[in-house]
Amino acid sequence: MRWLPEPARESLTLATVLHALSDPVRLELVRRARVTPDSTCAVLAEGMDVPMSTLTNHFRIMREAGVVSMAVDGRHRRIRVRADDLRDRLPGLLDLVLRLAETDQAPV
Amino acid sequence: MRWLPEPARESLTLATVLHALSDPVRLELVRRARVTPDSTCAVLAEGMDVPMSTLTNHFRIMREAGVVSMAVDGRHRRIRVRADDLRDRLPGLLDLVLRLAETDQAPV
Repeated sequence: MRWLPEPARESLTLATVLHALSDPVRLELVRRARVTPDSTCAVLAEGMDVPMSTLTNHFRIMREAGVVSMAVDGRHRRIRVRADDLRDRLPGLLDLVLRLAETDQAPV
Repeated sequence: MRWLPEPARESLTLATVLHALSDPVRLELVRRARVTPDSTCAVLAEGMDVPMSTLTNHFRIMREAGVVSMAVDGRHRRIRVRADDLRDRLPGLLDLVLRLAETDQAPV
């Protein structure tokens, strides 16, 4: 697998990470990716009625914000939430947001 | 004072609130508004090198997301963070984000 470029841990910022999490589809993708690490994008998006081009854009926003790592695996892209980096830079944020997302109205 | 329209407490959503907080200028405005409730927009933005039209837009985004209430007071607009509503709908989020914002690199 080849990992796509991503920001270093120390350059993650609160505003950018909040923006990456500020969309119902992205929140749901992160929630699923947290549950099943290294899933392909296609598997993560299963059952969502979202065009592939939109999904690609969502994954790019999350990768560029430092929320997920993304690897090229043949014809697939695999996703891993950067939980350790986020915990280091923004302690408590990811866990709280995912917990709140579960109790929020089902958005997708 | 006349309060401008804002979403009801029960219609606040995680994604919209995260989006309202996902900008360094808005984060700083919320932080200041939390410290000094009912300040005018002009006072909250003191020392920020941000055009008034941009500030107006920021305050509108935060009001429409349910993060702040905004009152018309003569020629002024006064801002109050909806801390109780946010705590009720998204427990812990505002406090955590403001705490993280303080330790994040000074953004503005």
